[in-house]
Amino acid sequence: MTTEQLVAQINKKQSFLCIGLDVDLTKIPPQLLETEDPIFEFNKAIIDATHHLAVAYKPNTAFYEAYGIKGWKSLEKTIQYINTHYPEMYTIADAKRGDIGNTSAMYAKAFFEDLGFDSVTVAPYMGKDSVEPFLSFEDKHTIMLALTSNEGAFDFQTKETEGKELYKQVLETSTSWNNASQLMYVVGATKATYFTEIRKIVPDSFLLVPGVGAQGGNLQDVCKYGMNNQVGLLINSSRGIIYASKGTDFAAAAAASALTLQQEMQQILAGRK
Amino acid sequence: MTTEQLVAQINKKQSFLCIGLDVDLTKIPPQLLETEDPIFEFNKAIIDATHHLAVAYKPNTAFYEAYGIKGWKSLEKTIQYINTHYPEMYTIADAKRGDIGNTSAMYAKAFFEDLGFDSVTVAPYMGKDSVEPFLSFEDKHTIMLALTSNEGAFDFQTKETEGKELYKQVLETSTSWNNASQLMYVVGATKATYFTEIRKIVPDSFLLVPGVGAQGGNLQDVCKYGMNNQVGLLINSSRGIIYASKGTDFAAAAAASALTLQQEMQQILAGRK
Repeated sequence: MTTEQLVAQINKKQSFLCIGLDVDLTKIPPQLLETEDPIFEFNKAIIDATHHLAVAYKPNTAFYEAYGIKGWKSLEKTIQYINTHYPEMYTIADAKRGDIGNTSAMYAKAFFEDLGFDSVTVAPYMGKDSVEPFLSFEDKHTIMLALTSNEGAFDFQTKETEGKELYKQVLETSTSWNNASQLMYVVGATKATYFTEIRKIVPDSFLLVPGVGAQGGNLQDVCKYGMNNQVGLLINSSRGIIYASKGTDFAAAAAASALTLQQEMQQILAGRK
Repeated sequence: MTTEQLVAQINKKQSFLCIGLDVDLTKIPPQLLETEDPIFEFNKAIIDATHHLAVAYKPNTAFYEAYGIKGWKSLEKTIQYINTHYPEMYTIADAKRGDIGNTSAMYAKAFFEDLGFDSVTVAPYMGKDSVEPFLSFEDKHTIMLALTSNEGAFDFQTKETEGKELYKQVLETSTSWNNASQLMYVVGATKATYFTEIRKIVPDSFLLVPGVGAQGGNLQDVCKYGMNNQVGLLINSSRGIIYASKGTDFAAAAAASALTLQQEMQQILAGRK
């Protein structure tokens, strides 16, 4: 999917919500555990109930790898289900990969070609030649970690590095890479005021923003400081939506929770016109 | 496996060689492609031919993920084969993972418990709480990227960060984390003189050293500057060993190539006594 197509979806749905499909078997309704593929059944129900309220789905690969081959099958079925039934949805493999060039190319092939994701998250530590292989795929985005929403973000990301914080170095440096226009960035919502600084470096890029809700970030603040003229934000919520209820009404509860966020987004979008 | 057991294996085999099982179907002998699981058959032959010359095997997960579920099956069969037939071998999942705490815990479970690896490589960008979940597993090591062997290492890793290069910040900071004694570090062989500085920060830790051979690193130099009194080095070679021949003699050729390195290591070990 191109950036233009993503923006069109946001405008059409009046939503820039991304739903994190981080499925933990200990947290899903117990009756699903009796099905052949509980993870997929859970995702399918969530997707069917929420696709009109969100523009993107983001499975975090850790939650699938933790169940071995069975988990990979669930991931494969999930992305196939989305691509077949809701091709208008933007998909993100939250994999945080990164390796030396030829190896990164293998990861890119796995997520973009074999699984068919629109985008994949990557880690910046190994630099340009670890990220550029992802950027060479047409109409695919590479979403690089910049400033994450966890406490450990302050260990290195905010450390002063040649005159500026490391995450700013990462942002600035990456803008010179081949096909940099295909880059998006992960910026945690827990640090809303940082968005002003970030927008000075990457005014036009989309930012994937985890940390709204469960991790304490505030949607209004993120939008105030982070939104650009084509919205430029994908706000992710995982637990707050998918675990809204552990009963048989889990999908309806997820939809209700997603609707609350979508309505808040619609108001914000209306307010900026 | 504990560090002590690894050191005992090094002394017994007079080798600190790690063989990278980075299997690319376009590079293995064509006759293997007719078998049901070419990747596993290739690995099995390489392992049977080289286990007495090496102390560790390191599959890079990218090469398995690139083949989807089939690839994960090959990875699972490979680690099971090693653990069953050669339990004295140290195993490294070269996965370069790292995520927020509860998600990193899922990755740790996948690699340590489900697959049964002795260690896994992780990326440092997200800081302490992204790495500590890995460190909480007993008798397992977490191998953190410090200074990698690729060109992109100079993009961020060597940038001056609060008075020292970022990779030194990473090394220093990590020594204060819970169970830091379970940490090892990735340090590329292409920068042998850096080892002196690194040893000032982590004198006792094991270093996993890629980049000898194909990427141009020199074994003598790495040992001169990087070895400590319990050796403290695992030297990885992938392509130089596993693709030594593309003919039916590929396993024997791999063994010959591994033997050359092992003999050089034996000489180095003898020379330090």
